[in-house]
Amino acid sequence: MTARTYAFLGPRGTFAEAAWRVLGMPDTDGQPAPSVTVALDLVRSGEVRGALVPIENSVEGSVATTLDELATGSPLVITAEVSIPVQFALLVRPGTSISDVRVVATHPHAQAQCRGWLAENLPGSVVIPAMSTAGAAQALTEGATYDAAIAQRIAAEQYGLDILADGIADNDDATTRFIVVEQPGPLPDRTGADKTTLVLFMHADHPGALLEILTELSVRGINMTRIESRPTRRAMGDYFFSIDCEGHVDDERVGEALKGLHRICAHVRFLGSYPRHDGRQPLIRKGVSDSDFTDADEWLRGVRSGEIG
Amino acid sequence: MTARTYAFLGPRGTFAEAAWRVLGMPDTDGQPAPSVTVALDLVRSGEVRGALVPIENSVEGSVATTLDELATGSPLVITAEVSIPVQFALLVRPGTSISDVRVVATHPHAQAQCRGWLAENLPGSVVIPAMSTAGAAQALTEGATYDAAIAQRIAAEQYGLDILADGIADNDDATTRFIVVEQPGPLPDRTGADKTTLVLFMHADHPGALLEILTELSVRGINMTRIESRPTRRAMGDYFFSIDCEGHVDDERVGEALKGLHRICAHVRFLGSYPRHDGRQPLIRKGVSDSDFTDADEWLRGVRSGEIG
Amino acid sequence: MTARTYAFLGPRGTFAEAAWRVLGMPDTDGQPAPSVTVALDLVRSGEVRGALVPIENSVEGSVATTLDELATGSPLVITAEVSIPVQFALLVRPGTSISDVRVVATHPHAQAQCRGWLAENLPGSVVIPAMSTAGAAQALTEGATYDAAIAQRIAAEQYGLDILADGIADNDDATTRFIVVEQPGPLPDRTGADKTTLVLFMHADHPGALLEILTELSVRGINMTRIESRPTRRAMGDYFFSIDCEGHVDDERVGEALKGLHRICAHVRFLGSYPRHDGRQPLIRKGVSDSDFTDADEWLRGVRSGEIG
Amino acid sequence: MTARTYAFLGPRGTFAEAAWRVLGMPDTDGQPAPSVTVALDLVRSGEVRGALVPIENSVEGSVATTLDELATGSPLVITAEVSIPVQFALLVRPGTSISDVRVVATHPHAQAQCRGWLAENLPGSVVIPAMSTAGAAQALTEGATYDAAIAQRIAAEQYGLDILADGIADNDDATTRFIVVEQPGPLPDRTGADKTTLVLFMHADHPGALLEILTELSVRGINMTRIESRPTRRAMGDYFFSIDCEGHVDDERVGEALKGLHRICAHVRFLGSYPRHDGRQPLIRKGVSDSDFTDADEWLRGVRSGEIG
Repeated sequence: MTARTYAFLGPRGTFAEAAWRVLGMPDTDGQPAPSVTVALDLVRSGEVRGALVPIENSVEGSVATTLDELATGSPLVITAEVSIPVQFALLVRPGTSISDVRVVATHPHAQAQCRGWLAENLPGSVVIPAMSTAGAAQALTEGATYDAAIAQRIAAEQYGLDILADGIADNDDATTRFIVVEQPGPLPDRTGADKTTLVLFMHADHPGALLEILTELSVRGINMTRIESRPTRRAMGDYFFSIDCEGHVDDERVGEALKGLHRICAHVRFLGSYPRHDGRQPLIRKGVSDSDFTDADEWLRGVRSGEIG
Repeated sequence: MTARTYAFLGPRGTFAEAAWRVLGMPDTDGQPAPSVTVALDLVRSGEVRGALVPIENSVEGSVATTLDELATGSPLVITAEVSIPVQFALLVRPGTSISDVRVVATHPHAQAQCRGWLAENLPGSVVIPAMSTAGAAQALTEGATYDAAIAQRIAAEQYGLDILADGIADNDDATTRFIVVEQPGPLPDRTGADKTTLVLFMHADHPGALLEILTELSVRGINMTRIESRPTRRAMGDYFFSIDCEGHVDDERVGEALKGLHRICAHVRFLGSYPRHDGRQPLIRKGVSDSDFTDADEWLRGVRSGEIG
Repeated sequence: MTARTYAFLGPRGTFAEAAWRVLGMPDTDGQPAPSVTVALDLVRSGEVRGALVPIENSVEGSVATTLDELATGSPLVITAEVSIPVQFALLVRPGTSISDVRVVATHPHAQAQCRGWLAENLPGSVVIPAMSTAGAAQALTEGATYDAAIAQRIAAEQYGLDILADGIADNDDATTRFIVVEQPGPLPDRTGADKTTLVLFMHADHPGALLEILTELSVRGINMTRIESRPTRRAMGDYFFSIDCEGHVDDERVGEALKGLHRICAHVRFLGSYPRHDGRQPLIRKGVSDSDFTDADEWLRGVRSGEIG
Repeated sequence: MTARTYAFLGPRGTFAEAAWRVLGMPDTDGQPAPSVTVALDLVRSGEVRGALVPIENSVEGSVATTLDELATGSPLVITAEVSIPVQFALLVRPGTSISDVRVVATHPHAQAQCRGWLAENLPGSVVIPAMSTAGAAQALTEGATYDAAIAQRIAAEQYGLDILADGIADNDDATTRFIVVEQPGPLPDRTGADKTTLVLFMHADHPGALLEILTELSVRGINMTRIESRPTRRAMGDYFFSIDCEGHVDDERVGEALKGLHRICAHVRFLGSYPRHDGRQPLIRKGVSDSDFTDADEWLRGVRSGEIG
C-alpha cells in the first residue's frame, strides 16, 4: 500500500468497487477493506491516502457505521462523493438453472428490494441472510450450501459466476451514495454545486436544540439535505446530529452559518465541503449571495465609523 | 443659535425642558422649538447641534411624529436618551380657587391620565382639548377663556401660575422617554447597557417579513424592546418597522444581526447606539458574547485553511 | 342621541365625517365628538350605537389614542373599516387673496404633508400649530388672528370658507383608515377578505415573546398587516402589542391561531373581525384552508380511535 | 404460532430475547425470527400478535431496517418499548483457553465496542465479521473455523458455550432499545410519560420542510427525541423523516401538533403512542397543558359567539 492507494469497502465486486471505477481517479490504486471501520482506520494510520465508503444507500444500510466512525476518532474529511445505480442479478455457479434454485442467499436489504421478483419467479425458494451481497456471491465459489446469490452484476465477473436474471430489483431507480474520505488538508475548490457535511454535538438536556440549528442554517438561506440524530454511545438519549447541507464552507453564507453552529453547539466537527455528485446548484435566495454579504460588511463598517446614519 | 445649542420640544415648561435639565449637558444652551418637525429641521440645517424630542411616552402620544421624521429626510442619529416621570398639576392664574374652576384645558392624553381625579374633585367641570399641556398653561396668561390648565409643575414656574393641586395623575408611575438627536458622527462608546434604534424598510408584498427580522435578531440573542409598523406615506399598506433592540452596534452580535437585516430588508436606516436611560444590562445568553464570536471566527479560519476536520 | 346614532371624530368637516359618508350606513345619524376618547365613551355608555374613529393614517397621527382607548376599559369591537384619500386645501375667509396670507394654521402633520407646496407658493409665511385641521378652519370663522388654514376640502363647505388652492399635499396618494367601533355582539359575516384586530398583553419579562406570537400566526399561514408595541401605562417597558392580521375568527386557521395566542399571552383582547376596506383576499397557502383543517380533525379522530396507523 | 405469540429478532440468545424477558408479558410465547423484515411480516400476516425488534441501539445498528420496514407496507403501530444494557462476553467451545484464541468472529459494531479490550487482551488475534453476534456464537457449535465469538452472555447458555471473559465492552453504559410492534388497534393508555413515533413524508422539492415540522411541534411545546431523514427508496434525494416526540396522541398538544403535521406533509404515518421505557415525564411549559387547551377552546367559543370582546 502507498499514499496513492485508496481503500474501498470490499470484497471486490460490491458497489463500492463499481463506485471506485466511476470516480476514475488517475494514477491511484484501489484496495478492498473488510469493513468501513477498517477502511477508515487505514486512512487514519496513513497506510492509504483515502477510503471509498457508502454513506447513504437504499440497499446495504451501512450509513450508521460510516456516520459513527466519522463522528469520533481522529478527524477525517470527505473530499468527493459519487452515486451509482443499484442493480441486482441472480448469480449461480456455472451449470445451475433456474429450476435448480431452492435456497438463495443475500443481504436482507437486497432481499427486500427484490421481494416482488422473488415472489413471482421463485415462489417456493428460501432466502437466507448474508453479511453482504458480494459475500453471498463469493461464498458460492467456496462451497456454500445454497444455490444462488442476489448480488450486483459486477460480482459475476469477479467470482466467475453466471447471471441467471438481471435487473431483478422491484424498483430500478435505487442508488447508493459513496464518499471519498481523507485526512484533513486543503479543501476541494468551490464549484457552485457543493455540499458540506457536519457532525453537531449538543449540550446536554437542551430541548429545542435542533430548531436552533435549523434556524442558524435557514437565516443564511442554507438548505439541509440529510439529517440524522445518533446516540453518542455514552448513553441512550445523548445525541449528536449528522447533517449534510448545500454549499461550500468558502461560501460566505455557509461560513457565517458554521460560526453560528460553533457558538451554539457543544462541539462541531467539520466533515468536508465537496462537489455534489449530481452537480445540482442550490437556489440562492435574495440576500445570501457572496456579494450580499460583502455589501453588508462594507455597510456595517460605515455605520460603526459614524459615516452612515 | 450656535453649535453648542440644543433645541427641545417647547414651549418652555413642558416635559422636554425638564428632560433637558435632567440630562445636564454642560456648556450647552437649550432653546424651545414649536414642534418635533421644526426641532429636527434645526439639527439638519446645522443651526443647532442637537434636539431633545419625545420618542415614547404615556402622555403626549407624539411618538409617531418623531419616528416618521427620523425615518425620512437626511439622516440623523440618536446619541442619548432620558426618561422622566410624568407629573400633572392643576394650574390657575393667581387668585383662582378650586371652586372657580368650571372649564379646564389640557392635551387629551393628559385628560385621560387624570380622569379619576377630575371625576372626584371637579365633577361638574368641562375639559377642552389643547395642542399641548404647556400650551394650555401658557394661554392662561394670554387671555384664554378657560379657568385652569392641567400641565406639569414646571409650567407654573415658567408662566407665573399657581398650583391648585399637584400629583393628580391617576397612575403616578407614568414616564416619558426623550431622545437626543444629532447629525451622524462618532458613536457614543459602548457601556454594556446600550440600545440600538433602527428603521427597516421592507420589500413590497413580503408576508412573513417581520418574522424574518425577528429571527435575524433572535439567532444572535438580541432582544427587541420596541416595535412599530408605520406606513411609508406612499400608500396605505406599505410599511416600515421602527424598532429598538438591546446592545450597541459595536457588539459583535449586534453587528452580525445588522448585517443580516441589511441583507433581507429593502433598506436599513441606522438611528444610533446609545446608553440606556435605566442602565439595565441585557442578559447575554450562552454563545453570543464577543468572545464567542471571536472564537468562532478563529475556528472558521482553521476549517477553511484545511487545518481542522 | 339614539341607538341609531354613530359618533364620529369631529368637528364637522374632518376626514372622519367624509369617511362616515363613504360608509353610507342607511337609517343612521352621525354626530361629531370632540375626541376619540369621548367618541368611544359614548359607545360604552350606550348613548350611541357606534363610533367612527381613525386608527391608522398618514396625517393626524391619532393612531396611538385610538389603540390605547380600545386596549383598556370595557370591551369594544371593530365592525367595519373604510379608507379615504387625504386631500388638503388652503382655506380662507371669503375675500382673502393669496397675497394676503402671512400666517397659516394647521395640524403639524398636515404641515409636514404640504411642506413642498408651502415653500414654493407661500415662501414667506409662518405656520402655527393647531389641534386639528378642521379646528384650524373653524377658528377662522370665529375671529382667529391667522389668515388661512390648511384643511380638507369638506371643511370649506362646512364653515363657509373659500378654497384658495386645492390638492396641495406633496404626495397625493395619502389616505386615512377609519374604523367603526361598537359594543360586542354578533360578528360581521365572513367575506373571504377580512381582517382581525387583537390586543396582546404579554407576561412580564418575557424576551422573545413577539417571536412566539408571530410563530403562532405563521404556522397557521396567517399574515400580519400591522403591529405596534404600546406601553401599558403602568410603567415604561411593560408592553402590549396591537396587531391586525388577515382573516376572520370564523376561519379555522384564525381560530386555532387565536387559541394559541390565548395560551401564551397574559391576556388577549379580541377587537373584531370585519371586511377589509380594499376587498383584497389573502393568499391562503397549502395546508391552511378550512377543508385542510377539517380533514386533519377527521384524521386525528381515526388515529385516536386506533383505526389509523 | 398463535395470536398469543410474539416474534423477536433471533436467533435465540440475542439481545432481543433478553429484551423479551424484561418486558415480561404474561400468557404469551416468544419465537425467534431471522430478520426484522420477517418478524414484521409475521405480524402483518396475522401469524403472530406482535414482534419485538430493535429500533435504536449502539451495537447492531439495525435501526435503518426497522424504520424502513415500518414506514412502508401495511400499517403497524408500536405499543411498548424496552431498553436493555448491552453486555459483551468472549464465548468459546468448552475446552478452549484464551491462549488458543487466534480468530474471533462477531458483528462489526460489537467489534467496534470491544476494540480496547481486544487490543489489550488478544493483540495478535484476527477479527472476522459475522451477520449477528448470536449467529457468530451459534456457528461455533456448528463447525465454524474460528476460535471464539463476541456475543452477549445469554448466547453462552443458549448454545452451550463457555464464557472466557465477560463485560468486555469498552463502554459499559451501552444499551439497545427495542419496540413491540402490533397491528393497529386501541392505543395504550396515557401514562404522562409517553412517546409518539411518526413517519413524515414530505412534498417534493420543499426546502425548509424540516424547519416547518419542528415549528409545528415547538409551538405546542413538544420536544423531539429522535429524528432521521431516510430516502424513500424511489430515488436518492427524496426523503421521509422518522421522528420520536414526547407525549401521547391523546394529549391535546400532541393532537393539535399532529393535525398541523397532517396539513403540511404529503403523508403522515402514525406509528403509535406508548409509555417511555424510562418513565421520564416531559417538562410541560406554560400554556400547553390539557387545561390550557380546554380554556382556549372555551374562550374562542365565546369570541365567535360575540360574547367576548
